[in-house]
Order: sequence, then C-alpha cells, then structure tokens
Amino acid sequence: MIKINLPDGTSQEHEDHVTSLDIARGISERLANDVIAAEVNGSIVDAARPLTEFVEDTNAIDFRLLTVRDAESLGVLRHSCAHIMARAVMRLFPGTGLAFGPTTGHGFYYDFDVDQKISEDDFPRIEAEMSQIIKEGEPFERFNLPRGEAVELCEEMNQELKVEHLQTGLADHETLSFYRQGEFVDLCRGPHIPRAGKIKAFKLLSIAGSYWKGDKDSKPLQRLYGTAWFSKQDLASYLEQIEEAKRRDHRVLGKKLGLFQIDPSVGQGLCLWLPKGATVRVILEDFIKKELLDRGYDPVYSPHIGRVELYETSGHFPYYRDSQFAPIFGHDAGRIIDYCIRMLEEGELASEKEAALLQAAEIMGYERGDYEKATTAEEKISALRKWEKQQERYLLKPMNCPHHAMMYKSEPRSYRDLPVRLAEFGTVYRHEQTGELNGMLRVRGLTQDDAHLFCTPEQVEEEFRQTLQLVQYVLKSVGLDDYRIQLSGRDPNSDKYVGSVETWNQAEASLQKVLEDSGLRFEICEGEAAFYGPKADFMVRDAIGREWQLGTVQLDYTLPERFELEYTGADNKQHRPVMIHRAPFGSLERFVGMLIEHFAGAFPLWLAPEQIRVLPVTDKVADYAQDVLRQLKAKGFRASADMRSAKVNAKIRDAQLELIPYMLVVGPKEAEQGAVSVRDRIESKDLGMIPLAEAIEKLETEVREKTIRQQFKSTFQALEETSEESENEY
Amino acid sequence: MIKINLPDGTSQEHEDHVTSLDIARGISERLANDVIAAEVNGSIVDAARPLTEFVEDTNAIDFRLLTVRDAESLGVLRHSCAHIMARAVMRLFPGTGLAFGPTTGHGFYYDFDVDQKISEDDFPRIEAEMSQIIKEGEPFERFNLPRGEAVELCEEMNQELKVEHLQTGLADHETLSFYRQGEFVDLCRGPHIPRAGKIKAFKLLSIAGSYWKGDKDSKPLQRLYGTAWFSKQDLASYLEQIEEAKRRDHRVLGKKLGLFQIDPSVGQGLCLWLPKGATVRVILEDFIKKELLDRGYDPVYSPHIGRVELYETSGHFPYYRDSQFAPIFGHDAGRIIDYCIRMLEEGELASEKEAALLQAAEIMGYERGDYEKATTAEEKISALRKWEKQQERYLLKPMNCPHHAMMYKSEPRSYRDLPVRLAEFGTVYRHEQTGELNGMLRVRGLTQDDAHLFCTPEQVEEEFRQTLQLVQYVLKSVGLDDYRIQLSGRDPNSDKYVGSVETWNQAEASLQKVLEDSGLRFEICEGEAAFYGPKADFMVRDAIGREWQLGTVQLDYTLPERFELEYTGADNKQHRPVMIHRAPFGSLERFVGMLIEHFAGAFPLWLAPEQIRVLPVTDKVADYAQDVLRQLKAKGFRASADMRSAKVNAKIRDAQLELIPYMLVVGPKEAEQGAVSVRDRIESKDLGMIPLAEAIEKLETEVREKTIRQQFKSTFQALEETSEESENEY
Repeated sequence: MIKINLPDGTSQEHEDHVTSLDIARGISERLANDVIAAEVNGSIVDAARPLTEFVEDTNAIDFRLLTVRDAESLGVLRHSCAHIMARAVMRLFPGTGLAFGPTTGHGFYYDFDVDQKISEDDFPRIEAEMSQIIKEGEPFERFNLPRGEAVELCEEMNQELKVEHLQTGLADHETLSFYRQGEFVDLCRGPHIPRAGKIKAFKLLSIAGSYWKGDKDSKPLQRLYGTAWFSKQDLASYLEQIEEAKRRDHRVLGKKLGLFQIDPSVGQGLCLWLPKGATVRVILEDFIKKELLDRGYDPVYSPHIGRVELYETSGHFPYYRDSQFAPIFGHDAGRIIDYCIRMLEEGELASEKEAALLQAAEIMGYERGDYEKATTAEEKISALRKWEKQQERYLLKPMNCPHHAMMYKSEPRSYRDLPVRLAEFGTVYRHEQTGELNGMLRVRGLTQDDAHLFCTPEQVEEEFRQTLQLVQYVLKSVGLDDYRIQLSGRDPNSDKYVGSVETWNQAEASLQKVLEDSGLRFEICEGEAAFYGPKADFMVRDAIGREWQLGTVQLDYTLPERFELEYTGADNKQHRPVMIHRAPFGSLERFVGMLIEHFAGAFPLWLAPEQIRVLPVTDKVADYAQDVLRQLKAKGFRASADMRSAKVNAKIRDAQLELIPYMLVVGPKEAEQGAVSVRDRIESKDLGMIPLAEAIEKLETEVREKTIRQQFKSTFQALEETSEESENEY
Repeated sequence: MIKINLPDGTSQEHEDHVTSLDIARGISERLANDVIAAEVNGSIVDAARPLTEFVEDTNAIDFRLLTVRDAESLGVLRHSCAHIMARAVMRLFPGTGLAFGPTTGHGFYYDFDVDQKISEDDFPRIEAEMSQIIKEGEPFERFNLPRGEAVELCEEMNQELKVEHLQTGLADHETLSFYRQGEFVDLCRGPHIPRAGKIKAFKLLSIAGSYWKGDKDSKPLQRLYGTAWFSKQDLASYLEQIEEAKRRDHRVLGKKLGLFQIDPSVGQGLCLWLPKGATVRVILEDFIKKELLDRGYDPVYSPHIGRVELYETSGHFPYYRDSQFAPIFGHDAGRIIDYCIRMLEEGELASEKEAALLQAAEIMGYERGDYEKATTAEEKISALRKWEKQQERYLLKPMNCPHHAMMYKSEPRSYRDLPVRLAEFGTVYRHEQTGELNGMLRVRGLTQDDAHLFCTPEQVEEEFRQTLQLVQYVLKSVGLDDYRIQLSGRDPNSDKYVGSVETWNQAEASLQKVLEDSGLRFEICEGEAAFYGPKADFMVRDAIGREWQLGTVQLDYTLPERFELEYTGADNKQHRPVMIHRAPFGSLERFVGMLIEHFAGAFPLWLAPEQIRVLPVTDKVADYAQDVLRQLKAKGFRASADMRSAKVNAKIRDAQLELIPYMLVVGPKEAEQGAVSVRDRIESKDLGMIPLAEAIEKLETEVREKTIRQQFKSTFQALEETSEESENEY
C-alpha cells in the first residue's frame, strides 16, 4: 500500500499499482478526463505511471493532479505536440533523422536532419498530418530499455543522432525511457499527455537553421517551431499577442522614431543612442539620480577597463571568460603566452606545439626567464603566469562591483559609516553570442543603473526594504504595476554556498519578512540562489502580457571576502560587510527597449523625447506660435513648432506619426485670446480651446505626476516569459 | 649696406658687419647693456652676430631687439645657464659626458653621463661653482666648423654622445655651430646671452634619471634641473609659486578630501571618482548639460569600443597606434597575424620567422586561405588582412568623433536640418606612457565634454561665435577670467592641408572676424593648425599664474570626407558638411584636477561637494539642528549636521579642515529665534546671527549666481606654461 499525501493536507491509502488516473477516476470521471499529468514529489510525471515507481525511503509520496487548468500542464501538452510534429514530418519526409525536441517559453521545437529543405510552404501539409494524428487520438506509451537494447532500437530505427547521444551525453545512464505513439517511437524522458486528443489547438510558427548540440562546427539541422494550447481561443490570443509584439518591435520603432541605431561598422550589439532615445535615457537617469540622492546614495564614476588581476580577485576572470571580450594585452606576445597557459592547464599542449608557440612568442618579444628551468606543466604555467603578471593586461569591465569594492577600500570604515551606497550608471561589456543579440534587449555593451550597498548584517533587512520601495516606485513611474517577486534561496541539501548556514538562514528570513510586511506578491524558489547569496527579482508583466525580469536585488557574501573588505564594529574589532548589488532598471538599454514595446513607442508625457508641438494654422500667426513655443521652453518642456507653410491637417498627421503626446493648434482666434487648441494624440481628438497658461499648468501637472494615460489593462492572457528550454529531453 | 626694418615700421641702413649690439649702442649705451638677443626675420639670434648672415633674397631684414623686458629673453638666459651648469659639473666631476641641455617651461636641464651619483647634497657646491663662473662674466662665443672638424673636436673633448649625435641625428648637417665660454665648449645651435653676468638669479631644482635620447634601452643618464631669472625677486616669486603649487597639488588634496583615487590594482592612469569628486563632476555635467540643451545641442550616447575598421576609416588607426590601448582581438591568433602584417609592412620579417609565426598562428586556430598562394610581401599582407577583416577586432575608443559621424549618417540630412549638434560626455582611452601620467591631469581614461557640430560652410562663423560664448560662460562660472585665445592657422607655404586654399582662407577669415568682434585677446599662430582644419584654444591663467590650454574649438574638413558625410543643399545637390569638434572643459578629469589646484581644494559654494554643515552647540538643540538640516536639504543644499557630542570649536575645526564653505552654528538662542549663526570658512569668521530663512536666501543667491568669493588676483608673476622643450639644441 502507498500513502498518498494530497495538497489539501489529507492523505489516502492505495494499492501499489495505482496510477494518477486511477486516483482521479476515484474522485470523478470528469476529473479523470481532465487529467494531463501529475506532480509527484515535486516532479511532473505521466498520469498513467504506477505511483509505486516514485516511492523512496518511506511508503508515502506527495501528490498533486495536474489538469488543463494548471500552468505546468501546458509544457506537457507542448512536448507531446513536438512528438506529433516529428511523427508528421517523418511521414512526409521519409528518412528524417531526429535530434532534440524540447518545449520553449510558449511552444516547442524539434531539430530534424532532413535532406530536403523544409519551408513555410510545407506547413499546411505538416499541420494537416498532425491534425490527422491528433484526431486518431492514440495514447502515449512509456517503456524502459537497458542501454544496450536502447542503442539497438535506435540503430534499427536509423536514428544516428540518438545513437550518438546515447553513447556520449547519456553514457552514464543504465536504463533509458522511450515513448511510443502508434508507429512513432522516441528516446524521451517525458512526461507526456495521456492521449493525443488533449491537443485542442496548435500551429507551426517558423523554420530556422540549427546545429547538432548547438555546435556550429557540427551537423546542420532544420529547426521547426510550433505552439500548442488547450483551447482555440488561447491559441488565437497568443497569435494576436505575437502580432501585437511584432507591431511594437522596438527595433522597428527605434528606427522609425530615431531612438537608437546599431551599426555593423561600429560593432554588433553596440548601441548608438540617437538624440531622441538619448533624451529618454537622460530623463530616466535624471529621475533615478534624484531618487538616489534623496535615499542617501553617493554618486561615483569608474573606468570601463580594469587590470585582469582585478577580475581574478573578484572571480569574474577566467570563470566568465567565454562571455567576455578578450583581454587587452599590452605585450605583443601576451596572447600567445595566455593561450599556452590555457592549453597547459587543460593538459592539451603537445610539446612540439609548445615549442612552436614559444618560438613565435620570442620573435614577438617574449623572454623565457623562469620557463628555461621549468620541466613540469605546473612549473611552466607558474613561469608563464609570472611573466604575464608583469605585463599589462586589461579587461573591458563585465561588472562594476570590483571597482566599487576598491572604492569602499579607499579609506578605513567604521560601523558608523555604514551603509555606504555607491551608485553609478556603469557601462559594462559582455561578449554575447551573435545569434543571441536582439536590438537593445540583448546587447554587448549595457549601462546598468548600478549601485552597491555595503552594510552590516543587521542592516540587510532595512536596506532590502528600502531597495524594494525604490524598485516599486520606479516601476510605478512607468506604469508597470503588475508584478510578482521571486525570492531565490539556498538549497538546504547543498554545500556549495559561501557564508555560514546561520547567515543564510538569517538573511533569507529577513528578506522573507520584508516581503511579507510589504504585502507584495512573492514566491520562494528554494535552491535557485547563486552560491554567493540569496536574491530577489521583480517579474514584471508588460502591456501585452509578457513577463520581464527587472529590478534584481542580490545579496553577496563572496566579494567582501575576496576583496577583504572590512569595517570596525562597535566592539572595535574588524568585521566583513555584506554587499548588496541592485539595479532597478537592470540596464538602460534593455529597460528602454522594453519601454518602447510596452508603450508601443508612444511614451507618456514625462518621458516623451518631444512632448508638445505647436501647429500654426496660417503663416499669419507665426509670431504667436513662436511666442507659445518660447513660453513652453521656458517652462522646461521639450517642444517644437511646425512652421512649414502646410495645411494644419498635414502637420497634425506628421505629429501623430511621430507619436508626440500633445499638439497645440494656434490660429487667429487663439492668437487673439492668448489661447491654444489642445489636440491629444492618445484620444486622437481636439480637446478644445483653453488659455495658454491653463494648458501649461495642466501639462506641468501631468509631467510632475508622471501620469500614464494609455490604457494598459491587457486583453491578452498573461503569459509566463521564459527563455529557457524545457528539460523533457535527456 | 643692409636695410633694417624695425617693429615701429621705420627702417635704417647699416654697414654689412653691423651687429644687434651695434644697433642698440647707436640708440643708447643703456639699451646696449640691456640687450639679451635679437629677433631677426622671426628667429631669435645672438646679439653679437653680424646681421649680414641673415640676409636672404633682398637686402632687408625684419629686426627687433630683445631685452630683459621681453618674454623671449628668458629662454636665452636659461639656455646659457644650462651651459654654465654643465661647465660647473665638468669642473667638479671630471670626465663628465654631455648629452642634451634644453630649456623647459620655466627653467632648463642638462643630461649628464657621470659615473658618480649626483645628489641634492651636491647642489650647493655646483651652485657655488656656477656663481663663480657668472661672477667672472666671460662672454659666450659662437664659432662654426665643417662636420669633419666638428667630429674631431668632440672626439678630442671625449664627448662620445656628441660624436654619436653628429653621426646620426645631425648626419645631414654640413656645418655645425659651437659655443665657447672660457674652457667650456659645446655643440649648440644657440642663441646665448652676450655675457654670463646677465644671469642675476638661478637655482638648481632637482635631479632625476633619464636615458640617452629618451630611449630606456639606451644609456642611463642623470638629468639636473634648474631655473634662472633676470632678478632675485622673480626667482623668489617663482620658487614661491612652486611651493604654492605643491601645497595645492591635486593628488595630495584629492586624497585628503576624498575626491578621487588611482589604484594600481585597477590600473595606472585610471581614475576612480570617489563620492565627493563625483559630486563635483555631476554638478559640472548638469551645469553644462543645461547650457547645451538651451543652445540647441542634442544628447547622444555611444559605446566605449568600436570595430578597428571604424578607426581605419577615421584615420585614428593605425596612425595613433602607439598612444592607444592594444586592439581587442576576437581570435586567439589575431595578435600574431597583426604582428606579421606590421613586420611585413616594415620589410622586417625574415622568412624563417614568418614561418614560425604562421605555424604558431595555425596552432591557435588560424587558417591560411589566400596566404597559401601569396608569394610577394604585398600579396601576403593582403591575404592576412583579408583574414583579419573577417575576425572581430575592437579598439577602446580614443575619440568620440567616429561614433558621432555614424550617427550623423543614420538618416539623410537636408541643409534645413543643419547644424546638427551631437553632445556626449564621452569617455575615451589613450595609452599614455607611464612616466607621463600625473594624477587626474594626465590619465589613460578621460571623459570629454565632447560635441560635434555638423554644419554648412556658411554656418561655421556663427557656430564658432556661439562656441566661444559658451566657453567664455563656462570659464567665468569657475572664476577663470584671465585668458587669451590662440588661433592656429594654415602655413601658406605648405600643401599638407585637406580642403582647398579658398575654404581655409574663408574659414580662417571667419574665425578671425569672430574673434575681433568678440573683443577677446587673441593671437594668430600661422602654420600651427593640424592638417585637417584651423582651431582656436583658450590659454587660461589659474590662481597661481600657470597657463592651461582649455576650451579647444577645432574645425575639421577631413572626417566628413573620410566618412562621406553629406547633406542635400538648397540646390538639391549633395554637399559635404564641416565638422566642428569642441570641448569647453577638455576632459572632466583634467578640468577637475585643475580646479582642485586653482581653488586649492576649496570649491566655491555652487561646486562644493558639501556646501553647509550645521553645528549644534549642545545636545539640547539636536532637534533644532536636524530641523535646520531638513530645511537646507529641502532647498537642494548638500548639507550635513555634526551631531557628535563634541565641543563646537572641534566641530568648526573639522569643518574648516574639510574646506566646507559655510558652517551654521546653532545654540539655544538660535533655536529660540529660528536663527543660525553663520560662519564663513573663507573669511574664517563668524558673520553673526541671522534668521534661517534669510541665511537660506543668501546662500541660494550665492549658488544661483555662481559667486566666486576667493581672492584670485594672483601675487605671482604670470608665467607661460609650456610642456615643450626648447629648440636651442640641435
């Protein structure tokens, strides 16, 4: 007998062979029909599997049924749909080799090895075949094989890539699971939906090139993307959201509105902020600068490079080397010596290659020194490192923290000086893969609205509270008020963490308490923290329902240790401060890119690069128009006047197209009365004639209050944004 | 007979053998006694030389006598003093070898090759020996020798370095001049003072190590520095200025006041702006940002790196390679290939070395491609370059102009859009030599208050006028009102310039006209312009009489050409805009470093990092002190309150030491009356009790008006600051 602990706290006793479906059926046939999978001891599993398989030490399991109403079910559905798509492709393109087919944020893909080129023209017939398969409604059946038989099966099916994966990536798996649906069999970890009929709506989205295991030196494949839902309505809503996102694409709007530019001759992923985009950035920077001053932060500036040794101290080098720009070597031979060290460390440098490299280095000015006497790899590495340390080597900074840590160290600190809050708009550089670059959202140079707080452990709670308030205020100011907080904590079963268990427990308890007090929606993700400290992320929903990770607050026990930061406590002894990294915007590039899409390019009055345009109806009121403009500018508005000899309707159309929040139309009547006729771009209508002074006052209020006038209650279904692929795949 | 044209426009006729001294004597014996040298046809020459030597095509020369009252005479005096110092050293240290002995900004040095180490302890006896030589008053006598005899003479005197220089640096000189004074003979271009007795005051200043011809792989030498003047009073004033400059040293004050930090673990020449220094920078940035907005500039932001190709287009690479940080090579083998190209270009790559380098490059992942088929150096270079262009190579930006040029190009421009004024606080990186680094004044990372104006040729005049006004306004705001402008123009006899002669003439005439209209002091330096355009520099005198080059305005005809910038003219044809580079501060690092010394760390109220400190007399008025602080902060003041339970005198002393402009002392009487007792740091006295509201109003006015209250009428003699060495030396 198994003891089944249900989410409501009750438990049931069942026979060993019981399945999730059986349990559902025990409640109602209708529930059994709705079941997609189950969550057993925290893992999602097939509804048809005997629960006895999951029993470990005790005879009890934690159990939860997943139906179409549970978010987790969508992933199961989509992975099954990927199998069905693969099955359809194999029917239509005989001899297709299968690679991997995981789920993505809102859909799934499968990588195929097919000779013919699949194009969008093929989508209708693939979709028709998939519909046919779904209509047939066959079940997904799981079976296990010992590895020898698993390899044999894949060989029989001519699935070479699966065979290779079994012999490399899965070499340590003794037993492997497969799923069968009709004639289609796939090596797969699962879980799957009980029957194909659960898929109520699906669509193929796109086709792209990919490589076996993502390695561009490896076999080229074709990746077919699709999405699947529990209802036609959900699918329609999702497709509409994609369309809306395309209309709002910041890369298109950024070009059209002259906000920013990325030019290959400057460099991919390197953003040139054009005047209008730069104006938005200046406003945001000034806004947050004022907030930080009021909240006791100190401004600092640091250079964009630092010695490689600085990043060795911080641990950013060579650990994150692959995502960094290569170091700047002062010595011509520096790069060769660096290469030699790396190869020697990996034990991959044959002696004749080593000799050739050293010879080349000598031609370029390297002097052997200690290397002469070195015999072992360790001695050689040490000799080469010694030489390297005497040379200049700089890194484009990937983070601002090492610089700020050095500033903290610039004078002795007492507990009375803490917290020290150092703030900087720090531009950092990271060498993201070309394929991952995306306008302003994923760049190689990003400016963080960064700050590092150095405080005593006792101050962590209050600093966290204040940081939360700051992030909330910042988000509110741009109309982002739909969010939840993810609190990432320690995995109690792991010992990878820096800092004592007591410190962690205390810190996590503090953070949790602050979140509880705040009344904010939050969830705790145990085991999600980095090794150096717990953190909190704001998961923010935008106007079309997409979720963005913003406003990270990260506790750090490691850097104070690595940089040997200290303060004198009230006990007159030396203590380590805690460091808090935080950035409400994250990066200005990503934040403004997100805002462009969130506002569809139509910034609210306080952020708009051009806020007001004065439109004279005839040349006769040119003087009055200039006078209105002068008064607006004197009040600090970003305004212009369209002085062309054109029809006012043409001027209105242009101003509308440039998404300028307000137009002030002036004709003879307005001039006579010292008034303006206000035209509102959002309402797209004339609000009537009012005295200029009154108009200015209204507009000033709107700026001061940072009013967001757009309607942002999204009609879209809220969607979880995740860039990670699923782990259904082995 | 020679015709002598005098500065007053008159001329005289003289016999061929006439000397400058003769002419002076013809006016008065007193004048003859005052004569130091003469300026003949623009060059400074010995007073004793027959003027016939300078006659060229016509029989007329332009002539001006130089006496102790002419600035140019000081250089002649100092160079002669360098000879006297060398003579004294040779007497005291027999066997001394002579290298070079030029003048510097305010003195001179001589590089000696002596076995014994000269120390400051030796200064008194060297100075005594010099005084003796001066007392003897022997004349400086010039004589010429053909090069064979010149070499023989130097060999006889055992002056090996002079011999080497004759055979290398001076290999193309057929006749060489020497100067003799008593037993001392030196290879020298001159000119010199007539007799040693003209030196009325001199002093040895320091001794340092140097190298023959500045090459650190060459012979080490000892460099002895000194200064010389026409009166003891001038010397005393100069020494006082040096002492005052030491007291104001921004490196010392910067540390003491917590303004900035340079940490070797971050990198030499890389400035960390600590909170107080960063606050001054923020204020300056905000100040100029507002001015720029009002003047029609647009803000932009650009990355700190760019592809090497971008700088090849602009011409900054490889031309300025030596003063730049090495490129960031994306490919491990990039540095080797780059090295090969450079060596092949210089024809310095032996084939076995080439093979070794290529082999190493291949080990590191280079693929030969076209290089296989290449036979000539040109073909090889072209093949290697082709490979290189396919790789990622970035440069830390040494200039912002290429990025701004790309932004200009981001959309089609019409003459109606011009001028386009793109402004950015752009941090650029230059790899200055370690020995040249100096606190914030000479750094490797500098933030320019940069802007580039793109305009039509017709707009140059107006843009220049506005830029001059901006620079004047900026300088006035920090109390720098003693300056002159240097206008650097074209050398009419050279054809190195980009742009037509007409364009240059027109541009120079425009600039000159604007300067004349402005009423500013200016001088025209013909031939001083860079090849790409004329420029104007503000030469600004600081509080202790030193001159700084600030506020450069540079016209540029080259970059618009190189980047193919265009605008559509009123004629509907494409035209090239003119580009103007301008930076009122120059760089924020250098400007703030200069301000620290100018103000001796005591910033005026509008710039002070901490403006006001509230000092409660007893704990009983703590609440009132906090209330005063709150009111100050609400008005935007950077203020704090010293709430320690200490005597008010101790609090005053600390605030004075931290150079805080105002202290508001509050006791029971002040609390009762809602008043404060204002203490002024500059006057160092109590200004009496006044109502808080009145104090706030006064302080607000002082900030708004950017009042400079320090007394800046320097008691020091105005000194020309120049970092260049003289050209008395061959």
